Amino acid sequence: MKELNMMIEKNYKKIVMKFGGTSMGDIEKISKVADHIQRERDNGVQTAVVVSAMAGETDRLINLVNEANVVSNKAEKDAIISTGEQVSSALLSLILNSRGIRAESVQGWQIPLETSNMHGSARIKNINPQKLQGLLNNNIIPIIAGFQGVSEENKITTLGRGGSDTTAVAIACALNADLCDIYTDVDGVFTSDPRIITQAQKIDKISFEEMLEMASQGAKVLQTRSVELAMSYNMPIRVRSTFIENNFEKNDKSHNIGTLVTNEENIVEDKVVSGIAYSRGEAKITIQNLEDKPGVAAQIFGDLADQGVNVDMIVQNISADGRHTDLTFTVQETDLDSSIEIIEGLGDKIKYSKCIQSKDIAKVSVIGVGMRSHAGVAAQMFATLAEKGINIQAITTSEIKVSVLIELQYIELAMRALHSVYGLDIKH
Amino acid sequence: MKELNMMIEKNYKKIVMKFGGTSMGDIEKISKVADHIQRERDNGVQTAVVVSAMAGETDRLINLVNEANVVSNKAEKDAIISTGEQVSSALLSLILNSRGIRAESVQGWQIPLETSNMHGSARIKNINPQKLQGLLNNNIIPIIAGFQGVSEENKITTLGRGGSDTTAVAIACALNADLCDIYTDVDGVFTSDPRIITQAQKIDKISFEEMLEMASQGAKVLQTRSVELAMSYNMPIRVRSTFIENNFEKNDKSHNIGTLVTNEENIVEDKVVSGIAYSRGEAKITIQNLEDKPGVAAQIFGDLADQGVNVDMIVQNISADGRHTDLTFTVQETDLDSSIEIIEGLGDKIKYSKCIQSKDIAKVSVIGVGMRSHAGVAAQMFATLAEKGINIQAITTSEIKVSVLIELQYIELAMRALHSVYGLDIKH
Repeated sequence: MKELNMMIEKNYKKIVMKFGGTSMGDIEKISKVADHIQRERDNGVQTAVVVSAMAGETDRLINLVNEANVVSNKAEKDAIISTGEQVSSALLSLILNSRGIRAESVQGWQIPLETSNMHGSARIKNINPQKLQGLLNNNIIPIIAGFQGVSEENKITTLGRGGSDTTAVAIACALNADLCDIYTDVDGVFTSDPRIITQAQKIDKISFEEMLEMASQGAKVLQTRSVELAMSYNMPIRVRSTFIENNFEKNDKSHNIGTLVTNEENIVEDKVVSGIAYSRGEAKITIQNLEDKPGVAAQIFGDLADQGVNVDMIVQNISADGRHTDLTFTVQETDLDSSIEIIEGLGDKIKYSKCIQSKDIAKVSVIGVGMRSHAGVAAQMFATLAEKGINIQAITTSEIKVSVLIELQYIELAMRALHSVYGLDIKH
Repeated sequence: MKELNMMIEKNYKKIVMKFGGTSMGDIEKISKVADHIQRERDNGVQTAVVVSAMAGETDRLINLVNEANVVSNKAEKDAIISTGEQVSSALLSLILNSRGIRAESVQGWQIPLETSNMHGSARIKNINPQKLQGLLNNNIIPIIAGFQGVSEENKITTLGRGGSDTTAVAIACALNADLCDIYTDVDGVFTSDPRIITQAQKIDKISFEEMLEMASQGAKVLQTRSVELAMSYNMPIRVRSTFIENNFEKNDKSHNIGTLVTNEENIVEDKVVSGIAYSRGEAKITIQNLEDKPGVAAQIFGDLADQGVNVDMIVQNISADGRHTDLTFTVQETDLDSSIEIIEGLGDKIKYSKCIQSKDIAKVSVIGVGMRSHAGVAAQMFATLAEKGINIQAITTSEIKVSVLIELQYIELAMRALHSVYGLDIKH
C-alpha cells in the first residue's frame, strides 16, 4: 500500500490547495498558510490556491444583513457576504508577495467562474482556465476567492455554505490538476468521530462513495457537493491539517499525510468496513393505527415533500387485521413541527388513532465499499447491537452502507461496540 | 436671487446623490439615506446614488493590512479596502428593495468605471454610461460603490481617500445629470469654520474657484479633485446635510437647502468676500544671513521639490549689505523634519549663519471672486490685522484669495475680525 502511495504522490506536478475559515482565522494563521504554499512552491509544484473568508467574517456580514431586518434580496446578500473571501484572498497574496513569492488575488468575476443565477446557492456552469493557467505559466500563484462566482447578468453569486470546497475541486478540474488538497483544522477523515470514539484512527485512503456516505452522515469534513464533483471528474482530494508541524518537512511523502479521497480502484482494500458514522439531529414520527388503504402513504409523503420536508427512514408494520398499520419515519429535527402540522392538516384524508413524535433518537451507520463483496456485515451489526441490549427502531441500507435508528442514550455504546467489532480500533 | 434658484431647481430631472461614511454609519442612518432617495423618486427625479463605506469600515480594513506588517502591495490593498463600499452599497439596495423601490448595487468593475492602474490613487479614465442609463430607463436606481474602479488589467483600483466625491461627480458628468447632490454631516459650506466663528453663516452659492480655495484651505467638505472635475464639466454640486429633517419636506425648493457650488456666471454677487479660511498644520523655516548669490534659491527649493516637499509661502528680505538675505518659507508640519535635513544636507553648497524653525504659525485666507473687480480687499485685511496688533509674517495672493501667515495664538482673533469686517457675520 505504501508503494502505491509513493507512486501517486511523486507525480504531483500541479495542485490546488484550499484553506478554510479556521486556517485563515487571523494574520498569524494566514502566515502559516503561506508556509504551506511556500513549501509546495519550493518543491517545484505548480500551485493554485482557494481560500475561505476569515473565520467569523461571513457570520459578521450575515448579521449585518439580518440587522437591516428587511425582506432579503439574495443578489445583494451575495454582494455583501462575498467580500469576506475578497479580503482574505488579498491578505494572503499580500503576505506571499512580501516574502518575494509572486501571487495575485483573483475574485470569481475575474476568472470568470460562471454560475447559474440562483443567488445564495448557485451552481458552477463554467470555469475559463485561461487567466489562471496564464498566471501559473508566469510563475504567479493565483489566490482565488472561494465560495463565489459571477452570473450571466454579471452579478456576484455565492455557492452556499461550505462552497469553497466545491470551488477548489472545480478549479482543480478546470486546471487539470493532479490533486486537490483541502487544508482544514482536523488531521483527515477518521474511522469515527474521535470526540466519541477515542480508538478512532485516521483513514489513509477512502473512496469517493464512502466519503459521500461519511459526509452525509455528519462527518462534515468536506462539503457533499465537492465530493460529488470530484467523483464525476475523478479528481483526488486530500484532506489534511493546516496546523500539524510535520506538514512542513520538505519532501515528506509518507502516506501519513491526511486522508486521500480517491477512486475506488486506487484503494487496496484491507477492511470491509471503513468507518462508523452517526447523526443526532433527527426526529421520529409514528402514526398509529393508520387505516391501510391504497394511496395513504403517497398522500402523506407527497404532502411532506411538497413542503420541502426530507424524509429519511420509513418503517411500516402491517397489523393483525390487515387493515391497519403503524407508520414510522424520520425527518430532520428542524422539520419536526412543520411535519406534524402537515399531517394534522390532512384532516379526513387519512384516518389514524394517534400521532407520536420523538426527538430522543439517533442514527448509526456502518460504511464500507468492501460490503459489496462481503456478506454478513449487516447481520454482524444487528447481532452486536442485540448483544448490548440496544433495540433497532428502523433500518436503511445502500450498497456500501447500513444505517439503524436507535435510542439516543445508546449512541456512544453502539458506536464503540461497532468500531471495535469491525476491527477499526487503533492497534497498539 | 431667490428667483434664480427657483429657475435652476425646477429643471432637475436627473441627479446623482452621494452619501458619505457618516451618512452610512449604521443601519438606522442608512434608512435615513433611503428616505432621501425615496423623496427624490416620489418627486419624479431620475436618481443614481453613490455611497462611501460605513464610517470606520475603511479604517478597520486598513488596520487589517497594517496588522499583516508586510511590504504593501497596493493592488491587493485596493482589493481589500474596496469591500467597504461593496457592503454599504448592497445594504442600501437591500433596504430600498424591501420598501418596494427597485434598486441594484453596482461595483466599479460592473459599470465599468475604468481607471489608470495607479493603485491607491487611480485616476478615472472612462465611464461607460450604458449600464447605469439602462438601469435608470428601467426605473431601477443604481447604488454605486464609490471610491473604486477597475484597471485595464481588470484589477480593482481605488481613487484615494475621499474618492467617493470624485466618483459621484464623474458619474454625474457621464450620465449628463443636472446636479450632483453631496449629502454629508454638515449643512453646507460656511463663510468660516463655525467651531471658531459662531457668527459664521451657510453660503447659499459659491463658485467652483472659491470652493477650490476653501477646500485647499482646510474646509474639508469636498474633495479637491471632485471640485476640479465639476469645474471642468460645469457640473453643479450641492453640499447638503443628510440629517436635517426639513430635507424631507416634499417639494422643498427653498434656496436654503445646502450650498450650491456652481459656475461663477450663475451667481449674482452681493459680497466681495465669500469666506475666511484657515490652516494650522504648517511650519516656518527661516535661513538667516544666507549668502545671496545666483542659484541659491534654486538649489534649496529644487532639492526640497525633489524630495517631495511642497513649499507654500516664500519671503526673502535683502540685507543692508546687499550680499546676505533672510529667506523664510513654509512647509507642511509633517515635512518639517525632513526639510531641515535636506537643508543641512546641502553642506557647503550654501552659506548661512542660522536655520530657525517654528511650528507656532497659522495661515488665514480671505476668499472671494468679487476681488477680481473690487480693489482694496488686501489693504483692508492688512489694516484690520494691524489694528488688532497682529504681525503679518508672509503674504501670498491669487486672483480670488489673499493669505497671510501669522502667529498661531492670534488665529481666532484674526478670523473673527476679518469675518466681521467683510460683512459675513449673521444678520439678526
